[in-house]
Amino acid sequence: MREEMLRNILSELNGMSADIEASAIISTDGLIISALLPASMDEDRVGAMAAAMLSLGERTAEELGRGELEQVLIKGNNGYVMMLHAGKETVLSVVAKSSAKLGLIFLDAKRAADAIKKTI
Amino acid sequence: MREEMLRNILSELNGMSADIEASAIISTDGLIISALLPASMDEDRVGAMAAAMLSLGERTAEELGRGELEQVLIKGNNGYVMMLHAGKETVLSVVAKSSAKLGLIFLDAKRAADAIKKTI
Repeated sequence: MREEMLRNILSELNGMSADIEASAIISTDGLIISALLPASMDEDRVGAMAAAMLSLGERTAEELGRGELEQVLIKGNNGYVMMLHAGKETVLSVVAKSSAKLGLIFLDAKRAADAIKKTI
Repeated sequence: MREEMLRNILSELNGMSADIEASAIISTDGLIISALLPASMDEDRVGAMAAAMLSLGERTAEELGRGELEQVLIKGNNGYVMMLHAGKETVLSVVAKSSAKLGLIFLDAKRAADAIKKTI
């Protein structure tokens, strides 16, 4: 079952590091496809934010000659939000603590995005 | 002269690495304070994009419990755009090639942002 497979990919991703707090698969128009979020995060908001960041990121990358968008990273003083394409119309969003080793989270997220792309 | 000092900071930053293609200091409402851009990049567009990304990034960081926004990074298949606060109402935007070593650009940008903060 595809739904279960996607959930397993997120579950595996969140299990890779204690620094990963949440992850979600979102359509480029902002609808949640699958999500593993703590109760404090609202699915609809996470979806809407990710879609807005991606769309603005795409325009910025284009306007500034950076080519096709691959990733958006937001760093706050309390942690990271990473968004990356997992196929043409799908986005993987990962929320991590500030103690996260960014290079490691990048790798794990990229691997999960590839798995999502193959599943969808 | 403050204007010249800011320009010198950008000039030094762009000189740190051949991978840095452009940099600009922008007010949080999107107006250019100082910029070293190639002719192909329009100042007003760079300013508007940076301000929009920062504002959306701030909301995203807040909504997802990441605290106060420090940085937004956009990765395209053709390079990076980095935006980071350089003081409360000022943003440093750096445009780099895809061959850039991200950790190094981060360090250089952070140092420049500190210098800008002190100057403004």
